[in-house]
Amino acid sequence: MVLRKEFFDLPEGIIYLDGNSLGPLPKTAKDRVADMMQDEWGAQLIKGWNSAGWMAQPSRVGNAVGRLIGAPPGTTVMGDTLSIKVYQALAAALKMRPDRKVILSDSGNFPTDLYMAQGLIQMLGNGYDLRVVAPEAVADAIDDSVAAVMLTQVDYRTGRMHDMKTLTELAHSAGAVMIWDLAHSAGAVPVDVAGCGCEFAVGCTYKYLNGGPGAPAFIYVRQDLADHVEPALAGWLGHDAPFAFDLDYRPAPGIERMRVGTPPVIQLTALEAALEVWETVDMSDIRAASVALQDTFIREVEARVPDLTLASPRNSAERGSQVSFRFAHGYAAMQALIARGVIGDFRAPDIMRFGFTPLYLDERDVLAAVDHIETVMGDRLWDDPAFMTRQRVT
Amino acid sequence: MVLRKEFFDLPEGIIYLDGNSLGPLPKTAKDRVADMMQDEWGAQLIKGWNSAGWMAQPSRVGNAVGRLIGAPPGTTVMGDTLSIKVYQALAAALKMRPDRKVILSDSGNFPTDLYMAQGLIQMLGNGYDLRVVAPEAVADAIDDSVAAVMLTQVDYRTGRMHDMKTLTELAHSAGAVMIWDLAHSAGAVPVDVAGCGCEFAVGCTYKYLNGGPGAPAFIYVRQDLADHVEPALAGWLGHDAPFAFDLDYRPAPGIERMRVGTPPVIQLTALEAALEVWETVDMSDIRAASVALQDTFIREVEARVPDLTLASPRNSAERGSQVSFRFAHGYAAMQALIARGVIGDFRAPDIMRFGFTPLYLDERDVLAAVDHIETVMGDRLWDDPAFMTRQRVT
Repeated sequence: MVLRKEFFDLPEGIIYLDGNSLGPLPKTAKDRVADMMQDEWGAQLIKGWNSAGWMAQPSRVGNAVGRLIGAPPGTTVMGDTLSIKVYQALAAALKMRPDRKVILSDSGNFPTDLYMAQGLIQMLGNGYDLRVVAPEAVADAIDDSVAAVMLTQVDYRTGRMHDMKTLTELAHSAGAVMIWDLAHSAGAVPVDVAGCGCEFAVGCTYKYLNGGPGAPAFIYVRQDLADHVEPALAGWLGHDAPFAFDLDYRPAPGIERMRVGTPPVIQLTALEAALEVWETVDMSDIRAASVALQDTFIREVEARVPDLTLASPRNSAERGSQVSFRFAHGYAAMQALIARGVIGDFRAPDIMRFGFTPLYLDERDVLAAVDHIETVMGDRLWDDPAFMTRQRVT
Repeated sequence: MVLRKEFFDLPEGIIYLDGNSLGPLPKTAKDRVADMMQDEWGAQLIKGWNSAGWMAQPSRVGNAVGRLIGAPPGTTVMGDTLSIKVYQALAAALKMRPDRKVILSDSGNFPTDLYMAQGLIQMLGNGYDLRVVAPEAVADAIDDSVAAVMLTQVDYRTGRMHDMKTLTELAHSAGAVMIWDLAHSAGAVPVDVAGCGCEFAVGCTYKYLNGGPGAPAFIYVRQDLADHVEPALAGWLGHDAPFAFDLDYRPAPGIERMRVGTPPVIQLTALEAALEVWETVDMSDIRAASVALQDTFIREVEARVPDLTLASPRNSAERGSQVSFRFAHGYAAMQALIARGVIGDFRAPDIMRFGFTPLYLDERDVLAAVDHIETVMGDRLWDDPAFMTRQRVT
């Protein structure tokens, strides 16, 4: 049993199917942040960096996240945003393969990963190239021109899931460095970064880890590499001796070198509190419950609402923790659903996304959501000009 | 009159002279964050990005910071850490001067600025060079090999202040781009970024702006350049149409392109609340009050504690909002002061730093602090082996 509704502060009457975008508020996060503001920042002031453990927080929380993705202690650290962590991993990977010029990714990657690669390449000049192929074409596109393969495991639109172990092995057999973005994986599906052998993994913590809007990102570096990667973002808190204030950068041993600037203590405090729920549940149980909810949802929607076309893989083994349907009036339909308290979201041009988080959703919620979907699809509000005008305005 | 003690939640019996490192807790920040957690994240969930204004927060708060540094609306945006903002400015500056290879800085710059430059150079290869000279040698070192001059206005150890206008003019007359780090300036001294003509300014907000530990940084880009700078950190929230999810990066118009990833909403909420105090005070009054407090402090310390040697400029026009003294046993002396409730800090090898923030300090506080310093210096605890052992342990 993995249901932990009492851990969250969910509004009455809401069925929240958007935890894949922003997880809900954990009650402990609210309390812990209030305490941190008053008892740490307020009372301890500058001393809080040591006395309240702020300075060690990025590594301490990193270890807590690491446990959820198969990362050994001391291989994961928190900070910055996922975009920045993608950049760090990518810049370090290119340094590891100086004779190669290609970054390989796929069109199902979240755009910011591609953008960060484009920005890096633009700055480096010198013949670097970002090669973007269809998700199903990645395996065949890995060759010995590729410096780094950079993929998001779970597609943000469809939930389609890459096989981390197989693709990592393919990358390695071609001599490429493997970078996994776990934005839609951490807290959603069992992940084993150490087992798959990838060099880098990155991810955010405001989705299935419920860290709050703008919660910091994480980066994992494979243990044997952590003392050797060259930090492109050479910030003082990644220095071997930050408080020596040397004029020259000398990277800290291990994962600490991936820290950059001053950590966001308030956000980290919210995240650290949110992560406590994982001490009481097992990721394989979470996965089983998530698959059961998703399969129920797919079965009921397809039986009762034939106008929606499944956009996610039907085989649950190839799907993360979300289910997407295509519908031409998907934007309007999602607005109507949200107005009824069923919160999913929409991705252009026609994707209605529904995330499943068994920590706070059970089968009754899923069935109730399908009732609302059936009603909304019967109402056909997109045929009503007044409704559509309102949608465009808001 | 600029004293706003009631705005802050300062512990009883503390004289806080370390606002140059971490500003104290504003009461409004505590309340606003609690409300944001419950009424926005908790109640509005994913909708908060629009309904609670989170998406516009980096620009809205950027404008509030901009007002304090002479930046017109729409030229300053919040996000990331100061280290990251330094990197963004520096990478953009190098792109603007592709024929030049030198970054000029000084040894009084905060190390992370130098480290970020070193990391960037290391990645770029290609003959780039960071030239670090003594602060007083900067003017003479600006020549037409310099692509970018990167300086922190106020020295973090001594409070020595560069003349922004003069040095910016020198940089420009040599054809170099000027980047100012305002970490110890924003909220401390009157700054006029637009008036001085610099291309970039960056800074943090947890010091004199009281945004809390890990509060986000800001970046200013001169208005005529904002549509032209090339973002090296090409994140999706700096994209022209983030929610179109295009595969190709296309920078947003203006300052928005300096945004990178998802903004840290909780930290920004604390900061936004903290900034309200500036609506009720004038920066020139703050400056006058700060100088008066500092001059009193210097006069009293020198009269009563001759063992301390002034490390800061004696001329207040050349000094930021802190006063530093050198003392061989400075670390132990500062620990003894902190134990008495007078909180300053120490920077190796021998600098005792005292920050002056007239928002919550008045002349009585300063005189009381000097009483404690006189007592501590008379006690000479550093001659007591037991005390010194305790210091090493904690």
